[in-house]
Amino acid sequence: MDKPIGVIDSGLGGLTVAKEIMRQLPKEEIVYIGDSARCPYGPRDPEDVRRFTWEMINRLLKEQMKMLVIACNTAAAVVLEEVKRELAIPVIGVVHPGAISALKVTKRDHVAVIGTAGTISSGAYEKALKAINSEVKVDSLACPPFVPLVERGVFSGDEAVRTVDQALTPLDEKGFDTLILGCTHYPLLREVIRERVGPDIELISSGDETAREVSSLLYHKNLLYVDDRQPQHHFYTTGDAKRFKRLADQWMEIDVGHVETIQLGE
Amino acid sequence: MDKPIGVIDSGLGGLTVAKEIMRQLPKEEIVYIGDSARCPYGPRDPEDVRRFTWEMINRLLKEQMKMLVIACNTAAAVVLEEVKRELAIPVIGVVHPGAISALKVTKRDHVAVIGTAGTISSGAYEKALKAINSEVKVDSLACPPFVPLVERGVFSGDEAVRTVDQALTPLDEKGFDTLILGCTHYPLLREVIRERVGPDIELISSGDETAREVSSLLYHKNLLYVDDRQPQHHFYTTGDAKRFKRLADQWMEIDVGHVETIQLGE
Repeated sequence: MDKPIGVIDSGLGGLTVAKEIMRQLPKEEIVYIGDSARCPYGPRDPEDVRRFTWEMINRLLKEQMKMLVIACNTAAAVVLEEVKRELAIPVIGVVHPGAISALKVTKRDHVAVIGTAGTISSGAYEKALKAINSEVKVDSLACPPFVPLVERGVFSGDEAVRTVDQALTPLDEKGFDTLILGCTHYPLLREVIRERVGPDIELISSGDETAREVSSLLYHKNLLYVDDRQPQHHFYTTGDAKRFKRLADQWMEIDVGHVETIQLGE
Repeated sequence: MDKPIGVIDSGLGGLTVAKEIMRQLPKEEIVYIGDSARCPYGPRDPEDVRRFTWEMINRLLKEQMKMLVIACNTAAAVVLEEVKRELAIPVIGVVHPGAISALKVTKRDHVAVIGTAGTISSGAYEKALKAINSEVKVDSLACPPFVPLVERGVFSGDEAVRTVDQALTPLDEKGFDTLILGCTHYPLLREVIRERVGPDIELISSGDETAREVSSLLYHKNLLYVDDRQPQHHFYTTGDAKRFKRLADQWMEIDVGHVETIQLGE
């Protein structure tokens, strides 16, 4: 099946998902849209998030794709179920793969989730976790400063350490053994977060788990690309293509190739 | 969706999968058949494996189930694709979940697989791994003494250490970073295997990964049981029910409840 996998995100964060798909499924092609011009989605009204997300999806549907990954937790929390109902292709959000992996690794049935204000206030992770295991204890915390930090390219150093330290204080002494990085930007701060929470907490990154889920579903639907090829990925942004490419290359440590600016909405 | 998940195995090994399903999906009910009377399947003719597996499936279809897990690597390697085509419900084998998890964790694209003679000679893991990533290097090794050892309840001690030590010698110096326990009996020998291969090798257990895949697919198909309940599991064996129950309780460290002996075939 030679159509690409569509990946959409509010900006650069979804690249952590795209990178993992490229690593775990090296024959698959990706077409990516990052809505950097309107990033972050986290603090926005859900109706705006819904409209922006559909604009990206409708753009991708013109190019054809065999599967859609909503690589933005905020967008997935708001529109995943609706998109799943409307589209004939398989649709994967980043919330559920992270939730089921957390249930796999937690030993004391006690999980914490950090994410944007939009994701946390939607309660999407808590719902996904409790739907599967009503006994699981969930601590949720919004970390609004993280996405702007990452979009500025600040992944380490004093400012990152200070920001993470302050933001995570409410989780101190909560007693969870597993922490879901419930935003695809957060893996870029992984080392700083790891340092802050200590070595004993399992960190669940939406990107890794979502890529694994993409692999599973492509297999179960007989949609894997099985022959050999050098895949041609396509990256689009609603923002500045040069800046997107520079940060993408820096983050992904691979050449993402040509990046094109597109217009969405009016 | 209140139907149970069907789990079939050549004997006791599939209990490692059932246990993980019960842990990761505590609301779901399981109906299990272990064909202990004809265990092990590993050295058998594929046509016999095929017939025995269908006998278990046909027995479960009478009870109704919402999903089928072929928790025996040997059986999955032989009949999974055929069963997937024939049944209207989702069918999961243990080969593919292990393979995609190995591709997720391997850092040097070099994986080793141990399994029964039947599983290894089928090449099922190698095919599943290479279908997704042609570049991955795969070392495969059959370990025929492991299943009889485990079925006798020997998971540790001198005999287990000696058997594992000798069996794994051909893998020495191969250079893989990830080892798939490609038989659901093998997690019972996990500690001995871990000791033998050292702390730097990632061990992939089919049971954990298959349970995670069950969770994913139930979610994507809208088949999760979402209300609260105390699930009632059912365990059947073609062998001695008392012996099955004793070993199952010992392995799973939970009470599996009533175990019933059933007849399959003529």
